Amino acid sequence: MSEVHFSKVALIGLGLMASSLSLAMRRAGLAGSISGHAATKATRDKALELGLVDEVHDSAAAAVVGADLVVLCVPIGANAAIAEQIAPHLEPGAILTDVGSVKAAVVRDVAPHVPEGVHFIPSHPIAGSERSGPEAGFAELFDGRWCIMTPLEGTDPEALEKLHRFWQACGSSIDIMTPSHHDLTLAITSHLPHIIAYNIVGTAADLEMVTRSEVIKYSAGGFRDFTRLAASDPTMWRDIFLNNKEAVLEMLGRFSEDLTALQRAIRWQDGETLFKMFSRTRKIRHSIIDAGQDTDIPDFGRPHGAGDK
Amino acid sequence: MSEVHFSKVALIGLGLMASSLSLAMRRAGLAGSISGHAATKATRDKALELGLVDEVHDSAAAAVVGADLVVLCVPIGANAAIAEQIAPHLEPGAILTDVGSVKAAVVRDVAPHVPEGVHFIPSHPIAGSERSGPEAGFAELFDGRWCIMTPLEGTDPEALEKLHRFWQACGSSIDIMTPSHHDLTLAITSHLPHIIAYNIVGTAADLEMVTRSEVIKYSAGGFRDFTRLAASDPTMWRDIFLNNKEAVLEMLGRFSEDLTALQRAIRWQDGETLFKMFSRTRKIRHSIIDAGQDTDIPDFGRPHGAGDK
Repeated sequence: MSEVHFSKVALIGLGLMASSLSLAMRRAGLAGSISGHAATKATRDKALELGLVDEVHDSAAAAVVGADLVVLCVPIGANAAIAEQIAPHLEPGAILTDVGSVKAAVVRDVAPHVPEGVHFIPSHPIAGSERSGPEAGFAELFDGRWCIMTPLEGTDPEALEKLHRFWQACGSSIDIMTPSHHDLTLAITSHLPHIIAYNIVGTAADLEMVTRSEVIKYSAGGFRDFTRLAASDPTMWRDIFLNNKEAVLEMLGRFSEDLTALQRAIRWQDGETLFKMFSRTRKIRHSIIDAGQDTDIPDFGRPHGAGDK
Repeated sequence: MSEVHFSKVALIGLGLMASSLSLAMRRAGLAGSISGHAATKATRDKALELGLVDEVHDSAAAAVVGADLVVLCVPIGANAAIAEQIAPHLEPGAILTDVGSVKAAVVRDVAPHVPEGVHFIPSHPIAGSERSGPEAGFAELFDGRWCIMTPLEGTDPEALEKLHRFWQACGSSIDIMTPSHHDLTLAITSHLPHIIAYNIVGTAADLEMVTRSEVIKYSAGGFRDFTRLAASDPTMWRDIFLNNKEAVLEMLGRFSEDLTALQRAIRWQDGETLFKMFSRTRKIRHSIIDAGQDTDIPDFGRPHGAGDK
């Protein structure tokens, strides 16, 4: 891998993504120094204490001064205000990127503020965990995962190449696509699964004929697999759904249509349709394991026995 | 734990549950000998080769001869025919149980065939994996998991107590409830999650604007969590849905209502409703971890890095 180095990297927002990025940068020696900003003092203090940043600032504008790479790691809804605040303080020649899960909205909110001479290149590393906050980060988060870059027309090829190598040095493989294709792809691979997981956990919580403690006790029958996604950060996910509305509504429409067909097969005791549907989905899991995007240990390798009590 | 021992245990069906049960029985020394039956010769041969059974039979009737414990480990739809075949060959005083995921239908299909003097006590160990077949079993499957018993009125207390201790010796904790309450509880904790998982994987497979290979590549964004459940045995799950129709349709109705409300919140940009829904689901995951029913390792402890490619 060719060398890549930034003299100063500014992380705006100091949660799971920023903390993991800091650790991945330190591991590969990608940054001379790291400055950071977070909305709350507690988060800023924690990030400093953990050594994730060399300096923290109570304004995003102050954090980006002198930085040749700026990474927006805030919930998507906060991007427009942050972009406006930092714009006058960005260094000429700096690269500005982000880690947001929606790309068209980020372009809409950030691009208008970016001054001439600053290279704005949106990115989305497809990696995460249900934990949030600066303590949640780990250096390996991006290893073996994909990072999608959605450069705008006229993006400087050198800046693009440098950011490409940066994400690779953090452990990612890179794909490039348009913001709108990204948003459609993520609507099915990430946003629909999350809304479904949040929904089923909510449905279970509201039952009056099965108690909450029964739902919890017997969750090993399948329910618990959904609760990991439903434990994700609420602010981040509210902003994703508000900012990828059209694609998510399209996927929800298809999902509900398909579910109605399955429901009808159950009502009319149509075992053949059920069997056909349940047979073809196995192959997809095997492909995901073959592609290195999930573990092939049965039951996600969960411990069975005294150790997990 | 008090001592429990059967001189001969017959396993009817030799898949994941039977093979795990065999290994758990061997571990705790619960069976003098184990006989088995499976529909296909390949499965019977494999079970014998793996040492899961001491003898195999090509009829269920032959397998139960002389057994003081008989465990039905077949898809639910096969119970009625099996019960009819084995009935004349069951030993007086024997305990007959099963591991089926639906209990009212098992009572409906099996009870009418059970001769006087044989103790029929339905059970359901809440444990599993997406793998199937005799090679899939492991001795620890039941450790730290719940087993629900649904005894009928007038069940012999001594037989009930003996089966209770048997499941405990296999590693399970025991709960007792009515078949109908079991079916309602499992409809939300297991059957609804599976039908949803099968459905979303099907929806993703059918998209024309996002390719199958894109769905697989970017599945780490959430989709892959559903594919584990959707890789479960199709015959077993077809039978579950055909035999727990009313409870599953009730849960599907509630799920769809709730999803429509979320969909409406997305369409009308109602961030407050979304945030409220996404905040309350986190607590349920923490309760599941506290109850020892899932691991608290982030991202299910999936490896990140070269190791999982």
